Amino acid sequence: MTSLATKPAGDTVTGLMRDISRVGTDPHRGGYSRPVFSAAETELRTWFIEQAGRRGLDVTTDHNGIIWAWWDTATGTRKDAVVTGSHLDSVPGGGEYDGPLGVASALVAVDILKARGIRPRRPLAIAVFPEEEGSRFGVACLGSRLLTGALDPDRARNLKDADGNTYADVAAANGQDPRFIGADLETLQQLGMFVELHVEQGRGLVDLDQPVAIGSSILGHGRWKLSVNGQGNHAGTTLMKDRRDPMIAAAKIMIGIRDTARNYRDARATVGRLQPVPGGTNVIASRVDLWIDVRHPRDEVTAALVESIHLNAQLIAAEENCTVTFGVESLSPGVNFDAGLRHRLQDLLPDAPVLDTGAGHDAGVLAGHIPTAMLFVRNPSGISHSPEELVEDQDAEAGALALADALAGLLGEAGHRG
Amino acid sequence: MTSLATKPAGDTVTGLMRDISRVGTDPHRGGYSRPVFSAAETELRTWFIEQAGRRGLDVTTDHNGIIWAWWDTATGTRKDAVVTGSHLDSVPGGGEYDGPLGVASALVAVDILKARGIRPRRPLAIAVFPEEEGSRFGVACLGSRLLTGALDPDRARNLKDADGNTYADVAAANGQDPRFIGADLETLQQLGMFVELHVEQGRGLVDLDQPVAIGSSILGHGRWKLSVNGQGNHAGTTLMKDRRDPMIAAAKIMIGIRDTARNYRDARATVGRLQPVPGGTNVIASRVDLWIDVRHPRDEVTAALVESIHLNAQLIAAEENCTVTFGVESLSPGVNFDAGLRHRLQDLLPDAPVLDTGAGHDAGVLAGHIPTAMLFVRNPSGISHSPEELVEDQDAEAGALALADALAGLLGEAGHRG
Repeated sequence: MTSLATKPAGDTVTGLMRDISRVGTDPHRGGYSRPVFSAAETELRTWFIEQAGRRGLDVTTDHNGIIWAWWDTATGTRKDAVVTGSHLDSVPGGGEYDGPLGVASALVAVDILKARGIRPRRPLAIAVFPEEEGSRFGVACLGSRLLTGALDPDRARNLKDADGNTYADVAAANGQDPRFIGADLETLQQLGMFVELHVEQGRGLVDLDQPVAIGSSILGHGRWKLSVNGQGNHAGTTLMKDRRDPMIAAAKIMIGIRDTARNYRDARATVGRLQPVPGGTNVIASRVDLWIDVRHPRDEVTAALVESIHLNAQLIAAEENCTVTFGVESLSPGVNFDAGLRHRLQDLLPDAPVLDTGAGHDAGVLAGHIPTAMLFVRNPSGISHSPEELVEDQDAEAGALALADALAGLLGEAGHRG
Repeated sequence: MTSLATKPAGDTVTGLMRDISRVGTDPHRGGYSRPVFSAAETELRTWFIEQAGRRGLDVTTDHNGIIWAWWDTATGTRKDAVVTGSHLDSVPGGGEYDGPLGVASALVAVDILKARGIRPRRPLAIAVFPEEEGSRFGVACLGSRLLTGALDPDRARNLKDADGNTYADVAAANGQDPRFIGADLETLQQLGMFVELHVEQGRGLVDLDQPVAIGSSILGHGRWKLSVNGQGNHAGTTLMKDRRDPMIAAAKIMIGIRDTARNYRDARATVGRLQPVPGGTNVIASRVDLWIDVRHPRDEVTAALVESIHLNAQLIAAEENCTVTFGVESLSPGVNFDAGLRHRLQDLLPDAPVLDTGAGHDAGVLAGHIPTAMLFVRNPSGISHSPEELVEDQDAEAGALALADALAGLLGEAGHRG
């Protein structure tokens, strides 16, 4: 791996991250809240466009809200491009690095390649994907799913945020024409491969004492929404015996979900979002909505686990004279990244270990269409989706150098396609 | 009780309720969301001021945000006033009648008294109290507690709504000077008694086949906030065994609360409001805040119940490697309404049965300072704090007539004080 000593003068990842460190801080939750198309995320998008422009990249935003910053070859033909990048949106109260680290590292990698005098034989693009977290509209990797046709545009247009705004309205308010969202073969055919750099969301690199890893696979995962329907009533006047309280049913269901997940080795099932309706202190809820995130290395196990959760929820709800409605919000099968590209990255970054991840990424969505790989940067806390997520300055720069080394090697090659 | 046939021409309760039936409807929860000083509640306040003005009443809003509409005697001396009224704010997704029915009935009762040619020997006032539900700032009966000195003004100024706005800032934005909130002896000394008409929040009148009841007492109740602190992390990358998930602890605690309440005859304990922080689908929560509403006819039982809930919560949280913080948000001892006033109302409304209630009211707060009574109007659903709360048109008019009959009798009497 190239040593830090070869780093050229100019922006550092740490410096770029510092530039945006005040955008979207969340005084209530701690960390950052940058939902897609919020003021904070929009400010970051503007910042990225300005940074890309400064580097002479040609920036376009496509119909799906994905920003592309192109470093074209002398011919200007956009084909077999080597693409890197990540996302700028965050979960509520998320960490500083999840998403923006990959974007900032891509910008610095371009600086490094330029400082090395590299003239790409194939185009390079930095992509910024909207709504990777799905924290506003409920569907993770919304931008890449639209691009690849994995998400029906009608369904996307009608997705609603917590305030009841549709994706179509929010996109329109952000200067996009929601009529034109959806599969974009023209753009897709320009892409030759995608390498996404991301903060590690676990302690693998800490245990291996390495700053950077190559990703091998992503666990399959999905999100389901469960609504428990009971009878809203006054908390003071309704006797305990007369209640059909969906909060009690929801509580039992959540314990059931945890217990079910514990019975499946390597399974993860989480309820991190729950909303009682109407949600007043002196009101027995009439309905409780909760969202279940389920992951397992084997998709058929995920399916069995979710079936078991649903069945169990029905039985528990019946005990409390409540009913449930249950539906999938998103579903991502497990992804094994392209073996050829992984081997090539192992040649280019010989010190980097290979790790899998439980987290979903746009790279996982794109993997069905082009060769895709990931680089992970060490996170000493092992914690992610939390203010405690961390990357040391030195590791951030090491990540950008590794990305630059990888891109340099890949740009020098003939395309895999076309 | 005066029959419907004697009802004078003019506004009806049903008509007034229809006038405001579009204000603050909640398309997501159903019913009405009219938090204090929201656009909806402010619109209702403006409507009330206009209605009171139309009836020749002299309207003032005091430093605590309470609106007073005075029907003065010929001398203009404001002393020993007979006061009626209620509140205009609602719980989230609440019913149409909880609060506004008492305000509309008070206006119609004034019409009836005027149509009867009554000239009061003592002043009459209609009061509209802010934040009776406590659904915005967490303290129920905020206005009457401030008026009577039951709530420390510094504590009130620093209360925060869900968006982090302080009561002081919201009051200032609504044209009030928050420096002057707090005990208001001058106003309190003008009041001789308070009779609040309210929709019944149970099925007592349905079972008794009567339209109107006289209230005898209010159950003691309180609100406590419990925060369960765990470790926020990524839902995909964190193994089940490595979690400190406060949602699981909160679920067990909620079941514990229900089981504890069931062990105490006549106890009610409810969690209707719960908020995971940060609240993302793919994020293990770092903290869960939940609010507990506890009521029992005997205050010492309420205290014992809450102590048991707190202790149990600590034990459960420890099982999940979480911790809890616990604090009281508001506490209202049980209230027996003034026996003399109740007997007088029984003379004036001989058909009306006497009922107690599990719901808190401003009348309960004022009961410590002046003779206080309540009238309840039949609710065929028995449901309250829900869109299903209901009052039949005929019962609404019967309620206003009963209130007018009561006020007529009380206004003709010498004052109880001074």
